[in-house]
Amino acid sequence: MKVIILGCGRLGAHLARRLDREGNEVVVIDRNAESFARLGSEFRGRMVFGTGIDEDILRRAGIEDADAFVAVTNGDNTNAMASEIAKLVFNVPRVIARLYDPVREDTFHALSLMETVCPTIIGSDKIHDIIAGKNGSKSK
Amino acid sequence: MKVIILGCGRLGAHLARRLDREGNEVVVIDRNAESFARLGSEFRGRMVFGTGIDEDILRRAGIEDADAFVAVTNGDNTNAMASEIAKLVFNVPRVIARLYDPVREDTFHALSLMETVCPTIIGSDKIHDIIAGKNGSKSK
Repeated sequence: MKVIILGCGRLGAHLARRLDREGNEVVVIDRNAESFARLGSEFRGRMVFGTGIDEDILRRAGIEDADAFVAVTNGDNTNAMASEIAKLVFNVPRVIARLYDPVREDTFHALSLMETVCPTIIGSDKIHDIIAGKNGSKSK
Repeated sequence: MKVIILGCGRLGAHLARRLDREGNEVVVIDRNAESFARLGSEFRGRMVFGTGIDEDILRRAGIEDADAFVAVTNGDNTNAMASEIAKLVFNVPRVIARLYDPVREDTFHALSLMETVCPTIIGSDKIHDIIAGKNGSKSK
């Protein structure tokens, strides 16, 4: 599967390494070249330097035949905008955006443009379960 | 149950509102008073202004008879340090820290001082499952 990941922060890099290890074709985009160091020396995928709301950069990353696009920069607005472009301009089959703001997540999810992951809600649910004694102690 | 939450960011506020609605005694600590606005007008818990690595502030929040302590500021170091104090100085039965850094999470988890939640790993797993078609589209 060909997956494009926008944002090489901790989450982006963690996901990129995992998908790469599993044999997928992975391309990571970031506007800060230093962040690619998080991918480690074993990463076999491709790195593209630039901003993910620029269609030329997305084309260079190979978005035209990507199976999935994942937007996990630290900015909700950037993630939402890049995901819209991936969906509406390039018709990427699977588009997933991280949105920190639960209200924004609701909105974009309702528009059905993309799938959304909100660490605020996931984290809160997880801690709630630990307090309530519902499950173990580590996030994996 | 009496729960003290350090950090009134999105996650802290979301969790505080939920635990409050469920009838728990909730105390939220933050060093930025404006962040308490996130709790909304229906929140019946208590707000304490100050830093969570100050034992006097923790005492003022009632840590001596708390059932659980949750550290969810934006700083891993603060969360780890405050959780250590809650566990070692005040013997709080259940201590949970959010740690963004997976390596640090491993370390603190191994020390068994606290339970840890790492949004990096949870988020990465969640997105991986969506790409792999393992589950639905929203974070709840």
